Amino acid sequence: MSADGLIQSLTAAFDAIPLIDPHSHIEPLSPVSKSLDDILGYHYYTELAHSAGMSQKLLGPDADPRDRCREIIRFMDRYDNTAQYGWFVNICKSFLVFTGDRVTAKDADALFDASLKAFAAKDWEQQVFAKTNLEKIFLTNEFDDNLDGFDTAKYVPCLRTDTLVFKFREPGVRERLAKVTGIDVGDVPTLRKAVRALFERFVAKGAKACAISLPPDFTPTPEGSSIFWMLAENCREFKLPFDLMIGVNRRVYEKGVHQGQDLFDRRCSLIQYRELFNAFPEVTFPVSVLTSGQNQELVAYSWIFPNVVPNGHWWYSNIPAYIGADLRERLQGVPKTKLVGYYSDAYKLEFVLPKYGMYRRILAKTIADEFVRPGTLNETEAVALGTRLLRDNVREIFNV
Amino acid sequence: MSADGLIQSLTAAFDAIPLIDPHSHIEPLSPVSKSLDDILGYHYYTELAHSAGMSQKLLGPDADPRDRCREIIRFMDRYDNTAQYGWFVNICKSFLVFTGDRVTAKDADALFDASLKAFAAKDWEQQVFAKTNLEKIFLTNEFDDNLDGFDTAKYVPCLRTDTLVFKFREPGVRERLAKVTGIDVGDVPTLRKAVRALFERFVAKGAKACAISLPPDFTPTPEGSSIFWMLAENCREFKLPFDLMIGVNRRVYEKGVHQGQDLFDRRCSLIQYRELFNAFPEVTFPVSVLTSGQNQELVAYSWIFPNVVPNGHWWYSNIPAYIGADLRERLQGVPKTKLVGYYSDAYKLEFVLPKYGMYRRILAKTIADEFVRPGTLNETEAVALGTRLLRDNVREIFNV
Amino acid sequence: MSADGLIQSLTAAFDAIPLIDPHSHIEPLSPVSKSLDDILGYHYYTELAHSAGMSQKLLGPDADPRDRCREIIRFMDRYDNTAQYGWFVNICKSFLVFTGDRVTAKDADALFDASLKAFAAKDWEQQVFAKTNLEKIFLTNEFDDNLDGFDTAKYVPCLRTDTLVFKFREPGVRERLAKVTGIDVGDVPTLRKAVRALFERFVAKGAKACAISLPPDFTPTPEGSSIFWMLAENCREFKLPFDLMIGVNRRVYEKGVHQGQDLFDRRCSLIQYRELFNAFPEVTFPVSVLTSGQNQELVAYSWIFPNVVPNGHWWYSNIPAYIGADLRERLQGVPKTKLVGYYSDAYKLEFVLPKYGMYRRILAKTIADEFVRPGTLNETEAVALGTRLLRDNVREIFNV
Ligand SMILES: [Zn+2]
Ligand SMILES: [Zn+2]
Ligand SMILES: [Zn+2]
Repeated sequence: MSADGLIQSLTAAFDAIPLIDPHSHIEPLSPVSKSLDDILGYHYYTELAHSAGMSQKLLGPDADPRDRCREIIRFMDRYDNTAQYGWFVNICKSFLVFTGDRVTAKDADALFDASLKAFAAKDWEQQVFAKTNLEKIFLTNEFDDNLDGFDTAKYVPCLRTDTLVFKFREPGVRERLAKVTGIDVGDVPTLRKAVRALFERFVAKGAKACAISLPPDFTPTPEGSSIFWMLAENCREFKLPFDLMIGVNRRVYEKGVHQGQDLFDRRCSLIQYRELFNAFPEVTFPVSVLTSGQNQELVAYSWIFPNVVPNGHWWYSNIPAYIGADLRERLQGVPKTKLVGYYSDAYKLEFVLPKYGMYRRILAKTIADEFVRPGTLNETEAVALGTRLLRDNVREIFNV
Repeated sequence: MSADGLIQSLTAAFDAIPLIDPHSHIEPLSPVSKSLDDILGYHYYTELAHSAGMSQKLLGPDADPRDRCREIIRFMDRYDNTAQYGWFVNICKSFLVFTGDRVTAKDADALFDASLKAFAAKDWEQQVFAKTNLEKIFLTNEFDDNLDGFDTAKYVPCLRTDTLVFKFREPGVRERLAKVTGIDVGDVPTLRKAVRALFERFVAKGAKACAISLPPDFTPTPEGSSIFWMLAENCREFKLPFDLMIGVNRRVYEKGVHQGQDLFDRRCSLIQYRELFNAFPEVTFPVSVLTSGQNQELVAYSWIFPNVVPNGHWWYSNIPAYIGADLRERLQGVPKTKLVGYYSDAYKLEFVLPKYGMYRRILAKTIADEFVRPGTLNETEAVALGTRLLRDNVREIFNV
Repeated sequence: MSADGLIQSLTAAFDAIPLIDPHSHIEPLSPVSKSLDDILGYHYYTELAHSAGMSQKLLGPDADPRDRCREIIRFMDRYDNTAQYGWFVNICKSFLVFTGDRVTAKDADALFDASLKAFAAKDWEQQVFAKTNLEKIFLTNEFDDNLDGFDTAKYVPCLRTDTLVFKFREPGVRERLAKVTGIDVGDVPTLRKAVRALFERFVAKGAKACAISLPPDFTPTPEGSSIFWMLAENCREFKLPFDLMIGVNRRVYEKGVHQGQDLFDRRCSLIQYRELFNAFPEVTFPVSVLTSGQNQELVAYSWIFPNVVPNGHWWYSNIPAYIGADLRERLQGVPKTKLVGYYSDAYKLEFVLPKYGMYRRILAKTIADEFVRPGTLNETEAVALGTRLLRDNVREIFNV
């Protein structure tokens, strides 16, 4: 089989694997887009358009959604080289009966109209699930999110803890915690009790992970009142993996678009997590790093620590150049049973398809180059390896 | 078309684009070489030869230029694997009627003679411009450089400010500043006035950028007497881009050859420029990073900050392995209108051709692999994308 | 010749070059394995199996070696994607008449039996030398190791100095030093004398290098009682290269398997060695970096410092993804006469073959892609370049 034929064949096999997406920001009561505005409102488009010169005038809540979409699309001829633009074209083709190869300003209105029509279908959510071959998707829940009214076998709750760890002293947080747990935190024991109550609540609702994003200079320590450490203790007790998303500095570009303000400091090391990884051998830590430059640390720490596993390709590293390099390194140095291949990080379900599509093509090419062409794996075995990264490991590691 | 045919076709198309080179160290009154000694005196050759074992005896001002060239060439069989050697062979073939494939010790005298003959041509400067397809080239001017006596439409002045920021207290600097501005700096207001006067002077002469190179531990702050901050304020007022060349430690190898003493500390982050980038949204910062390991930061900061743009491939990162990786990442994550593809950093005009030649081949291969082969761009569109990186963005960003 | 044909042809040529392996942990009196247990006891297998879930129960000294091997092999279906697994299959095929393509649990006993039989051959050591095409291999000797009873032309002594520099105050070290040198260290002058005596002892026994591994935060300084600085002074006097293996943090994973506890902090820079490299221009420093992210520093420092040379691909960077990238960068930026291509770091001689085999394939592919296909070198010249990295430079730099 030709090189391209092999990659296509593997990609097709991977496309057929039902997805369990272990990290997203989907709202389960409003999981799909209502119009093109929900698609183009994703920070990837607003920030690229703004970075390329678009003013933020039309990004406010009072602006007309159609005008906003026109404007973001109008600027696409400045960023149609990017991977993110590629996702958008993929969405237009997959969900909006768009047949062109490139989206330009003149397509804006037709796409907007098509979105209103398509997304209004009663079964749109089911259609997206079906076209995406999506089985389950993890949520990102604030500790006091409502966890009722949706199918938690499909929308898997996940306790997100940034607020508890980094904003506990901000006004209202203790009150919210008291409201949801019935515990008024006044000292370390009551804090500990309240945190534990959150885990009880989430586990009762089928939560499958605890998660947090962390700044580059963060080092967890066990000092008595550390909420972070309490989270790890509860992950141990409740047997939940603790997703660590390491490396983000919030609000670096203060006047950036919504969700387009965060950056990083590459001077960050997993050595900062040394004490944590040693203290909790029973807790699995699916680790995402923000920068590809930290991938070798992730490979090495996962190579020897049983409880550290590489998790997907996050944010600024979620473009083919970094995914390809990082994936190859992980495949050469980390046991395959520890590789959580990918997650969509999507805010709306329509993004799961193009993002996983990008990943599957890279996965197919990488496995073809690394294993099939050198004669190490035949095609059937290669499909099994890809299935492991796409699905099996998510099931085993997150117990879903 | 075959893979190689496509790359060759794109390279040929890129070769036909007139160059505007946005950073060099050309002396406008002595822009071309007078003999092979000016070519081989470039620090890339003296430092590689010295690193490979050549003594510095013949590098002094009293040594015979022909002997020096013989010696540097004699050592080439120790560094003929390097990209820099490739530039030299390219120069010999393009400008010195050399027809071999490799330059060795026995070629030294013939090349030296050929250089004397070729470079003595009355129109040598024009010949180099023509062969190089060079339209304009930016200079690197000390604040008190003479800006008269040359065509500033061809040799574009650029205010280089390392001396002002890092050597202001060294003997003679205040005097030089007083001489060129007529302002005797005694306090912050007079300093501010003098700095502004420099911008007036440079802009009047057609300057198109302010530039500085910065050590890895530098963090700009707005404290009152910061000359750096004043420079940014004047860039805003005079609408000049401010080139930041980030990451060089000077004189690390103290006994190294001239200009071959500087290295770096990779523990450097663009987060150090957070306050600057936020404070000057009106100023465009073309940023060069010394290490490829900082390229993901440059991609990410350029991806969300409208005023941060990636600028070329600098010094230790100006070899194909780093150019190729960095370029691919930039093309996947940064709006194409923000990518200043390349600059020569040349001290003599003869180097513009081989350096841009290297870049164009990498650009052709990258665009072929990333856009044409996957079917995203046809060849005409691919040429347009390359033209944007090679020329259009320089024109738009530097307003030339 | 086809692309693959060229790589195969170069690989075959490189396979024919007798190896001088400049760094290993071979015990000269027990250089080969006695059973499969010596092969699978290598930390790469115990740590990968443990990382993939294997308990450490069978790793203790009292466990049955056959049971241990069964268990490590049983877990291979969790890490059979790794480069290290590839070495093992290569060993089975090369030394254990194994004819399959993959080793699985059911092969454990047969392999164990085969190892007992093969390794019991009287001339097994000679067989391994012959099959490996190995000429000499460097040792890693504690300062008081016995250096008698083996052929030092084949097993080249090398003074390893971690204990002296980092554990000098631990109980027993001064006594060991006194015993081997006859000098009872009480102050700086006696310390200096004792250190010098070690060099006399090692050089008399044919030692060809001094070596040390260093944590990421180490910065050598000349303060009076610095043993590190004394080592460098003696390297100068005795004309020994000083191998620096930079970047390892010991015992990060405290409960990891034997030799599987060390990791790193990527925030490490060669700028920390600035004073050292300047102070000892007469000493050659073959430098290994633990992380590929530091390779550009190594390229740049080697590019201008005559006494800094890149040395092999160490530990966590010794997998194809990092070797390939790092090698390509070194070949483009560092004089070829300064590139020490590879060392095995082996504990048993059977590992030299698969590790060098991996390296030679990457070297062949890299030289083919970088030099032969672009027309810069013909195949004969390409073989010469590879020979330089594999053998010539080891001979010249280490004077063997
Ligand atoms: Zn997320
Ligand atoms: Zn420059
Ligand atoms: Zn070693």
